[in-house]
Amino acid sequence: MNFSSKLIQDAVEQFSRLPGIGRKSALRLTLHLLKMDKSEVRDFGEAFISLRENINYCQECHNISDADLCELCANPNRDSHTVCVVEDIRDVMAIENTHQFKGKYHVLGGVISPMDGVGPDDVTIDSLVEKVSKGNIQEIILALSTTMEGDTTNFYIFKRLKEYNVKMTVIARGISMGDELEYADELTLGRSIVNRTPYENSLA
Amino acid sequence: MNFSSKLIQDAVEQFSRLPGIGRKSALRLTLHLLKMDKSEVRDFGEAFISLRENINYCQECHNISDADLCELCANPNRDSHTVCVVEDIRDVMAIENTHQFKGKYHVLGGVISPMDGVGPDDVTIDSLVEKVSKGNIQEIILALSTTMEGDTTNFYIFKRLKEYNVKMTVIARGISMGDELEYADELTLGRSIVNRTPYENSLA
Repeated sequence: MNFSSKLIQDAVEQFSRLPGIGRKSALRLTLHLLKMDKSEVRDFGEAFISLRENINYCQECHNISDADLCELCANPNRDSHTVCVVEDIRDVMAIENTHQFKGKYHVLGGVISPMDGVGPDDVTIDSLVEKVSKGNIQEIILALSTTMEGDTTNFYIFKRLKEYNVKMTVIARGISMGDELEYADELTLGRSIVNRTPYENSLA
Repeated sequence: MNFSSKLIQDAVEQFSRLPGIGRKSALRLTLHLLKMDKSEVRDFGEAFISLRENINYCQECHNISDADLCELCANPNRDSHTVCVVEDIRDVMAIENTHQFKGKYHVLGGVISPMDGVGPDDVTIDSLVEKVSKGNIQEIILALSTTMEGDTTNFYIFKRLKEYNVKMTVIARGISMGDELEYADELTLGRSIVNRTPYENSLA
C-alpha cells in the first residue's frame, strides 16, 4: 500500500507487527486513532511503553505482578505442596476462574519451540527444578496446551524432575462438556475411553 | 477480567478501545508486546503519539498529507474540473488503485451520522461548497458508501450544490464483476437493470 503520509505509514507498520493484524486492519485502527483526542492517544501510546519498561514478574511463580510476590503466592491459604505449571498469565486466569484449584502456579513464560528459537533456557524450567529440589512440593500438575510444543515441554519437565520424589500429573484430556460424541476427533475420543473415570467422580 | 498487574490492565484497556478488539484479543496483543524488545515497544507507542500530534491535512482536498498540498493536488496533470467526493483516505487509495480516475478528490473526513453525533459541520462540506462556488468545477462525483449515512450525506451535498452550475453524478451501483446473478440482492439487481448501460460501454 502506498500512503500519502509517512506518519500514517509508520503507524500502519507498527500495528501490522501485532499478531493477527494485517495492513487493512492496521489502517482502520490508525484512522480510528486520528478521531481520538490528542491526550487520549498519548495515554494509548504511553500505556504500552510503560508496560514494557516497568513490567515486573513474581519472584516465586514468575507470573506478571506489580509486587515482588504476586497475590496468589503471597496468599497463605493456598496449598504450596501442589504446583500447577502453565504457559502464561492467561492460563492462570482461566484456571482461577474455575475455582477448582487451590494450589500455587509456576508460569513458564512460554513453551519449548525449536521452530521459534525457544529453548529450555528461555522458559523458567530451571527455577521449577530448583523449587522441586527443596523437597516441599508433593505434586506437579502439567497444564500446557496439547500441541507439539506443549507435549515437548511436558516431556522435558518430566525428564528433569523424575529424579525427585514428586508426583507428576497432566490435566485430563477428553470430550468437552456439552460436546456431541459424533463430532469429537478420534484422538480425543480414544483418549477419553482409555482414561475413563469412575462414574461417581462425574457427579462431583 | 481480573489482572494481576495494573500495567497489564492499562494496556489491555487501551487496546480494547480500538474497534473490533475485545478484551481477550487485547490481552493477547499485550502479551505479544512483552516479548518484543524495549526499544521496539517504544517505537510502537511513539508512532501513534507522533501520528496524532503531527498529522497534517492537505489544504485543498483535506486528505492526510505530510505537505500543505498532497501529491494528487500538487500534480498539474490531474484534471481539476472533476472532483470525486469520498469519505476518507482509504477510498482515495482504493480509487487510485483502479487507475480509472484522473481528476481530483475531496475528502469529507466522515459521513453525516446523527446517531454518532456527526453533523454537516463535522465534515468538510462547507469547504466543498466554497470550492464549487468559484465556478471552476464541472462535475462532482459522489463516491460514498451505500449506507443510510452515505445516502444522507449525498442528499445534503446535492441540496447544497444544486444552486451552482455543476453536474452531479454518483458512482454506478450494480452487480460486481464475477458475481453470479442468483446470489445478488434484489435491490442491487433491480438497480442494475434500471441503470443498464450500452453494451459497447462494457467492452472498454
